[in-house]
Order: sequence, then C-alpha cells, then structure tokens
Amino acid sequence: MPVKNAMLAIVKHVSEIIEELDESEIDTMIEEIQNANRIFLLGAGRSGLAARAFAMRLVQLGLTAYVVGESVTPAMTNKDLLIAVSGSGETTSVVNAAKIAKGVGSKILTVTSYPKSSLGKISDYIVTVQGRTKIDIERDPLKNQIEGKHASLTPLGTLFEDTVMIFFDGIIARLMIQLHAEEEDLKRRHPTLE
Amino acid sequence: MPVKNAMLAIVKHVSEIIEELDESEIDTMIEEIQNANRIFLLGAGRSGLAARAFAMRLVQLGLTAYVVGESVTPAMTNKDLLIAVSGSGETTSVVNAAKIAKGVGSKILTVTSYPKSSLGKISDYIVTVQGRTKIDIERDPLKNQIEGKHASLTPLGTLFEDTVMIFFDGIIARLMIQLHAEEEDLKRRHPTLE
Amino acid sequence: MPVKNAMLAIVKHVSEIIEELDESEIDTMIEEIQNANRIFLLGAGRSGLAARAFAMRLVQLGLTAYVVGESVTPAMTNKDLLIAVSGSGETTSVVNAAKIAKGVGSKILTVTSYPKSSLGKISDYIVTVQGRTKIDIERDPLKNQIEGKHASLTPLGTLFEDTVMIFFDGIIARLMIQLHAEEEDLKRRHPTLE
Amino acid sequence: MPVKNAMLAIVKHVSEIIEELDESEIDTMIEEIQNANRIFLLGAGRSGLAARAFAMRLVQLGLTAYVVGESVTPAMTNKDLLIAVSGSGETTSVVNAAKIAKGVGSKILTVTSYPKSSLGKISDYIVTVQGRTKIDIERDPLKNQIEGKHASLTPLGTLFEDTVMIFFDGIIARLMIQLHAEEEDLKRRHPTLE
Repeated sequence: MPVKNAMLAIVKHVSEIIEELDESEIDTMIEEIQNANRIFLLGAGRSGLAARAFAMRLVQLGLTAYVVGESVTPAMTNKDLLIAVSGSGETTSVVNAAKIAKGVGSKILTVTSYPKSSLGKISDYIVTVQGRTKIDIERDPLKNQIEGKHASLTPLGTLFEDTVMIFFDGIIARLMIQLHAEEEDLKRRHPTLE
Repeated sequence: MPVKNAMLAIVKHVSEIIEELDESEIDTMIEEIQNANRIFLLGAGRSGLAARAFAMRLVQLGLTAYVVGESVTPAMTNKDLLIAVSGSGETTSVVNAAKIAKGVGSKILTVTSYPKSSLGKISDYIVTVQGRTKIDIERDPLKNQIEGKHASLTPLGTLFEDTVMIFFDGIIARLMIQLHAEEEDLKRRHPTLE
Repeated sequence: MPVKNAMLAIVKHVSEIIEELDESEIDTMIEEIQNANRIFLLGAGRSGLAARAFAMRLVQLGLTAYVVGESVTPAMTNKDLLIAVSGSGETTSVVNAAKIAKGVGSKILTVTSYPKSSLGKISDYIVTVQGRTKIDIERDPLKNQIEGKHASLTPLGTLFEDTVMIFFDGIIARLMIQLHAEEEDLKRRHPTLE
Repeated sequence: MPVKNAMLAIVKHVSEIIEELDESEIDTMIEEIQNANRIFLLGAGRSGLAARAFAMRLVQLGLTAYVVGESVTPAMTNKDLLIAVSGSGETTSVVNAAKIAKGVGSKILTVTSYPKSSLGKISDYIVTVQGRTKIDIERDPLKNQIEGKHASLTPLGTLFEDTVMIFFDGIIARLMIQLHAEEEDLKRRHPTLE
C-alpha cells in the first residue's frame, strides 16, 4: 500500500469521526475555555503531544495555558480548567493527575473515545472523539494482509491522536472568531525563541 | 463557523496536499529510514511535536530513533539519518542543527514546504509537503470575515503541521508492511511508563 | 544574607549529608547499574531534572539509559533497572509509575530521604539521601528572620535535590573508574546536537 | 575512589568556585531579575536542566518565568530578561538564540565560565562561574590514574553545572528575603500536578 493511500484512508477515517462529533459538547468546551481563569493541558504519549500543540495555539491566542509536566506550570485552583486527553480514558498517569486536580476544585474536561472510562467518570465535561471501533476494525480500509494475517496499519491510538490534533485546530479556528483574533495576532505572540 | 466545518476544511486541505506528494521522494525516505543505522528527529514548535510523535512509532517498530534535545540522544555519525521538519525551511535553530549534523557526515532528510529554503539547500533528500500557498490564501475556505477583514482560521503552520502528522503515520503504515510488523508488535514495545 | 553565604551554607549541608550516606547502599547501586540490561530514570519536578542529568552521563559512559516520559523510552522488562528519585518517597506520579514497573518485573532502586515511604516499601534497593530533618529545621543555618518569622532559605526539596545532583556525579566518577572510561570517551559520546 | 570521596571533592571544588564569585555581578543579577517584566531561561544539555530548576523556583516565588523550548513560552519584548547558561559560552544553539533575543531588545544575562566568549560578548550582564581551569586540571583532586593515564572524574561541564545549580539556589535564598517570601509561599505555588 503506497503511503498516499494510507494517508487518504486516515483522512477519510478522520472525516467520519468528525461527522459523529456532538456539537453541544463542543459548544460547552468553547464556553469553558473562555470562562476558565487558566487552562491546563494533560496527556501522555502522542495524546500529550496533541495537547501541547493545542497549548501553543491557546497561548498565541492570548489565553493563559500550561502543560502539566513543564517547568513553569503553577498550582491549580478552582477557577482553572484541566483538559485531559486520553483515547482509552484509562491511562494511569492521566487518570491519577485528573483526580488530584479535581481535589483542588478544578473543572475537568476530557477528550476521549470512552466517556464511561475511569477518566470520563470523574470529568465535569466530555468531548467524545471516536477512535477505531469494533466495526472499524472489521471493515478497516487500513487493514492489510501480511503473511495471511490481518494487521491494522493505523496502530494503537493513531486515528484518535490524528483526529484530536485536527479537532484542537478546529477549536482554535472557532476561538479566533469569537475572540476576534487574526493570524497576525497569533504571529505576534509566536515564541521569539524555539 | 462551527468547529466541524473548520475541521472538515482542514481535512479537505490535507487531502489536496496528499495528492501533490511526490511518490519517488517518499520511496527514498522509506529506503533511507531502513538503511540508516539510527534515525534522529529534529523540529521546533509544533513541527517538533509531529517529529516526536513519529519517533515514538519508529521505536515501537523496533527501529532506533532519537529526538534532538531529549536527554538520551547520543552523538551522531555518518551512518545516521537526520530527519528535519520545518514548514518554512528557515527555522534558525533547525537550520543550524542540520548544518552541524551534516558536518559529522550524517545524511539529512528534510520535510518542508520550501525545498529551495536554507534547510532544503543543505539536505541530501527532501520530501515536499505543501502548506498554504499564495493561491490557497486567496481562495482559502478557512478564511473568515471578521470586522471587515479576512483572517485565516488555520493560522501560521497549522496545515503543514497537521499534514506532516498524517504523512508520518502514512510512512509508519508502509514501514509496517515492509518490516512485516503488526499492531501487536508495536503494542509490545509501547512504553511501560508514560 | 549575601548569595555566597547562602551557597556556602548549602554546600556545608550537602557535606553533612554526604557523611551520612551508607557505602553499602552505594555499592549495591553501582553493581545493579552494571548488571542491568537498561537503566530507566524516573522523577518529578526538580528531582526529575537531577534524574535526567544523570541519564545524560550514563549514556555518555556507553550505558543504555532512558528517561520516563521522553519520546523514545521503550517498554521495560525484568532485566531492566528503574531508578526512582523522590525526596518524600510519596510523589503520586512516581509511586504509581514504580508500581507499574514492578509489575513487569523490573528492579526498583529508589533514591529518597524516606526509606519507609510508599516508594521505599516497594523498592528492591534504596539509597537514603537525607534532606532537611526536623533537627535541621530547628538549627538551620539557612533560616532567616523575616518580619519576625523564621523562614527556610532552602525551600522545599532544595537540599535533597542539590545533594542528589552531586551524588549522581559521584556515582559517575566511580563508574568511570570501574568501566575504565576517560573524559575523552564521554566527550566522544556527547550529543552532536543539543 | 569511593563515591563519598568523589562527592566531597566536588563539594570542595564548588566551595572554591563560590569564593571567586563577584558579589557585584550577583547584585546586578538580583536587581535585573526584579526589574524584568518576565524572565526567560535558556540553556542546552545539563546547563539547561539547571536553568529549568531555577525557573521552577522563580515561578514558586511568584515571578513570571519561562523556559525556552517549552510549549507555553511566549514572544519576548524589550522589557524581558533572558538568562542564558553555558559553561563555554560557545554552545551554538544558545549563542544563536541569545542573538535573536537581543534583536528584539531583551536584556541578556549570561552565566558562564568564559566572559569573553561569543555569548559573553553579546550579553548585557555576566555572572562568571568558574568551571575547571587549566590549573585545576593539573592539580585536580578528581583526577585518577587509570591504566597509566590521568582522567578527570568530573567530566566535561560537571563542576560548572553543579555549581550553577547551587548558585541559582543561592539567588533564590536572596530573592526570598528581598521579596519577603517564606517557604509556605513557595509551597502554595508548587505545581498541583507533576
């Protein structure tokens, strides 16, 4: 399978996931981001990278955002919003951190494929972003026959992570409109050193 | 503009960029990854995050990969491949690091929108991934009229970064086939702690 | 209090802590580092930075080391050694991660001020590095009277973290002798790009 | 050489370096930190880790600090202070970043062993922290005879890095007095999640 085909299959899958997003969940997210005093991003592995990419843009929009685990991340309060990203909703380090944040009164917004997961259960708000479902796994266009076996070519959380990356960029587009921010404003706040 | 529309516009744009990818550039990349003793990933900001997401999967495929700037990244040799990611190809820290790597004889493969950039010029191999072009900027479905002005809703490198993320996952799909790796193999190598 | 005095008081305190180190605990650490297939470093906050500084030198010594949370950190096995750093031995994220590592059979070596802590209890080996003790806090040369109150000028884990930084460099000195490594060998393995 | 002896030799060396610090350079640093709108920390490798450890405490003191390369680091202005850490003063990535910061009008304060280095030359303020000097290298208590050769047991920047770590903690002690901050204040601002 050529790389282009694999990419197009990922993109097709992402499009299908987008259609299933719940606009009211998204509206709540937009509102809570604007209501929060400060926004803290939390995620492990590749989900954590999507969270960091989102944090960068939030800062460029003029909002106050932090990434859990970075040096300058301060104490949280009950006026802050924690956005936790975990496909399974069961990543140990993420679930435990969310519990601690909840303990100091921060609101928890979770982006996950499993709203009924451990993480989902303790969250104030949830945005459900499908990853691969059982049906997908059966009719997966990204499955390939290798030595008589079927193997997914978007292993582990790939589809969730790629969709979340684009989802966060969709949120940025909407926030730009609501905050009357233009590209120039983000450019001006782009880190001088990187 | 609702978030879903923004996401679908990003996805449509990514699809267009995919069509313009050069399969022979991609074939070279696949080959050089397999020929390299070790693979070093380099990028700043959000491009750097896409590079790190790729490094994670390469390690899970059983290849030896490092991210420039992380603690355990060793010295490079002339048997190593540096994959540098920069939309503009002019990010100072990336260009300077690539020059140093070239100085020790490492091969440089650059993923950029500008093959004729400073980074492109010193690279052994290039994969051209379009970001927004001038034409795009004029007919951009993600432009929005805000207070009488047009503003892009995929600010700065957004389209490049999102496309590169999916591009790298396409490369992983192809490598899985060539290396006869299945999802189970990646799962087994997934970090125990994260 | 001038900065030099504060520094000399820290150094004096570190010297006292050094005297109390248990050489047999250290011998075990040196042995286990050499026995391990790979060494994984774990720590949060400033303790995590000391752990990373140590990982860098282990790699330069030619050993295989990883830092938990970095992109290229692989799955652990029962032939690996996890070195966990926590002054209190109660840092939630560190304790939980150590439990998971123990579950896959990795050996756990903990550097802590509290060998009877949650982390200490699940560890195979412990190196006790005193931080401030109650006695210290009473006769602390770094206490200063501010507006009628006493305040420690080496707040929180400062003394533990500074001592651990130097402790790890002492371990490196000893490993250099045992591995017949010279400065030149480390220089040769120093990252080309940083 | 037992580990304790190596540690005591490091500590002795750090004490000697402390004596040679210039109090007027330190006074300027304390002043500039308090004058700055925001403080940006910059360093590569182990020097970068010392810089990050310092940033954590500055934030806990209630100051606004950022680490170059982390996700939420914003654009710099001419009201900001960049603190650059480099033993040699020649680390390419650090020198280049300092030049860019200077270009936007930020003040540059450099912590280095070589005030006449490339980094020193473009700095507004310098704090000279000796590392090993030629004299040290000849009468180095940490040299050891290995197979007929002399080898330093505090390889590369070890002494500089350990001294800078303690130097930064001395600066924190002084800032605590000047800002009337007590340990409780730092504890209150300690990250909730780490």
